Amino acid sequence: MHVLIIGAAGMVGRKLCERITRDGGIGGASAGALDRLTLVDVIEPARPEGFSGQVTTQALDIADPASAVRMIEGRPDVIFHLAAIVSGEAELDFDKGYAINLDGTRQLFDAIRAAHDVEGYFPRVVFTSSIAVFGAPFPDRIADDFFSTPRTSYGAQKAMGELLLSDYSRKGLFDGIAIRLPTICIRPGTPNKAASGFFSNILREPLVGREAVLPVSEDVRHWHASPRAAVGFLLHAATMDLSGLEQRRALSMPGLSATVGEQIEALRRVAGDKAVRLIRREPDPAIVDIVAGWPRDFEPKRALELGFTADASFDEIIRIHIEDELGGSLPG
Amino acid sequence: MHVLIIGAAGMVGRKLCERITRDGGIGGASAGALDRLTLVDVIEPARPEGFSGQVTTQALDIADPASAVRMIEGRPDVIFHLAAIVSGEAELDFDKGYAINLDGTRQLFDAIRAAHDVEGYFPRVVFTSSIAVFGAPFPDRIADDFFSTPRTSYGAQKAMGELLLSDYSRKGLFDGIAIRLPTICIRPGTPNKAASGFFSNILREPLVGREAVLPVSEDVRHWHASPRAAVGFLLHAATMDLSGLEQRRALSMPGLSATVGEQIEALRRVAGDKAVRLIRREPDPAIVDIVAGWPRDFEPKRALELGFTADASFDEIIRIHIEDELGGSLPG
Repeated sequence: MHVLIIGAAGMVGRKLCERITRDGGIGGASAGALDRLTLVDVIEPARPEGFSGQVTTQALDIADPASAVRMIEGRPDVIFHLAAIVSGEAELDFDKGYAINLDGTRQLFDAIRAAHDVEGYFPRVVFTSSIAVFGAPFPDRIADDFFSTPRTSYGAQKAMGELLLSDYSRKGLFDGIAIRLPTICIRPGTPNKAASGFFSNILREPLVGREAVLPVSEDVRHWHASPRAAVGFLLHAATMDLSGLEQRRALSMPGLSATVGEQIEALRRVAGDKAVRLIRREPDPAIVDIVAGWPRDFEPKRALELGFTADASFDEIIRIHIEDELGGSLPG
Repeated sequence: MHVLIIGAAGMVGRKLCERITRDGGIGGASAGALDRLTLVDVIEPARPEGFSGQVTTQALDIADPASAVRMIEGRPDVIFHLAAIVSGEAELDFDKGYAINLDGTRQLFDAIRAAHDVEGYFPRVVFTSSIAVFGAPFPDRIADDFFSTPRTSYGAQKAMGELLLSDYSRKGLFDGIAIRLPTICIRPGTPNKAASGFFSNILREPLVGREAVLPVSEDVRHWHASPRAAVGFLLHAATMDLSGLEQRRALSMPGLSATVGEQIEALRRVAGDKAVRLIRREPDPAIVDIVAGWPRDFEPKRALELGFTADASFDEIIRIHIEDELGGSLPG
């Protein structure tokens, strides 16, 4: 099996690559061993360690119309399309957001289509969409048939990517599925300025004895998935039978709805009061405003019926971070 | 006031042009008299009769990237974007559908944006979308917050046009509204091969003593608006206060939900049994299948609250056709 990961240098891309090279494939032995991997990003992705198959790494700008043809030159069986510029950047640079998030996606789909028309090429395509396709006001829980009225260019571009993927799939040009990821928590790395950063910061930093800033009140509710759960969604999407989707190929993934207060209580259970005391409350009206427009909870019936599974609790999300990022235990 | 109609040679475009030149403007005297009209289509549109203002007609292909800049050279205050290739053609010619329905729309929006950035140009943009943005299975009545899962490329392209319009409007580049028209009934002209043609044929033809073919059963329910109501939606969309839309700028228009049997009973009341006897039943399984995937009824609460009004009955729809197309009375 040949797998292509577009956006392989990003956090989810790296974790996906680690997982499939460790497992030696996706979907178990019956799906065939992983013998070839193509990794693409705007910067050259790292080569996976301990993988004996063929690896191609490419530094390509997905906004360049010539890139997509090169990415699929090896005719991968499964394509993970994770490449995007994020919400904040797409909002600041309108042209760049459309060039990467919309045109880059369409150019990929058109390159596949050209190969399909000539030689019957028919890969599975897994596209990461986002809960940013939804825009406030929301019901308490967003159902599968709720409409997309994004309030960011990023959300609009992802919603258009979903429509393209569904239309190209309906026409039989490839076998596509779009999965809307919850906010990833705990994001590894260092605190960043993304408005959503605090959801991870208030757990990740205190776990290793560092302070973190909480800019909103504890009753703020949001929708989360661990990096490990996100990789699980991608693998399931790559291997499941898609005939049950009919023509509704964009799915809100399951997640965990929790308030900031519930996150903090989970931190207390896992790491004690001394960790919780490292959270400094510094209300930031700008962030409070932004977060008020974000989804709080979903009712992802279709994804659950189709076998996608979420984290069971925030305690589990924290334990996953300790296992995957901190070597399995908290520092002294 | 300067009005631009893109798609001015089409049925709705011609009726819109007739109406605003007859009225001398849109939105009443307070909105300012209509003194300039730019009419664009892929074939040169006819010049309106009896209009004393400045008229520019242009034969332009909206798929040509240079067209949009030329269309808006006169900086129209109101832009009606009605141009599209229809569902059947977009399904047969994938590239042409995307070039006209998606790229043409985006090029128009980008031309407006360029003029906005340089000189603060800020027109009202009214975009005709379609109930084809919805795909079966449906609830009995489609609510305003039901999701778009189109089952045609045309529907996907219209849904993407809605997303673009909403995003460009949110960014303050123009003041846009997308209106999803019901199926237009009674379409004037001659019977055509569109799968939806029979909804009009079974009324229009018997009214003038000609036979018409009914390919589905009488219990088929569908969602209709007269050409006059459609023009009314466009005029209201061009002049209403859009602040009430918040960022949800795509609206399902009100319409009349009726079964074929109800259409026929209205024909009987208006034109008698002899008209009804001209409907020949010839079931066509292909058309039965296509129509089974179409919306039957809507609950367009937002549009009604915002002042859009639909036809009151099928009797009225038939009478509008007699007034507007047959000179006010049935032949002999």
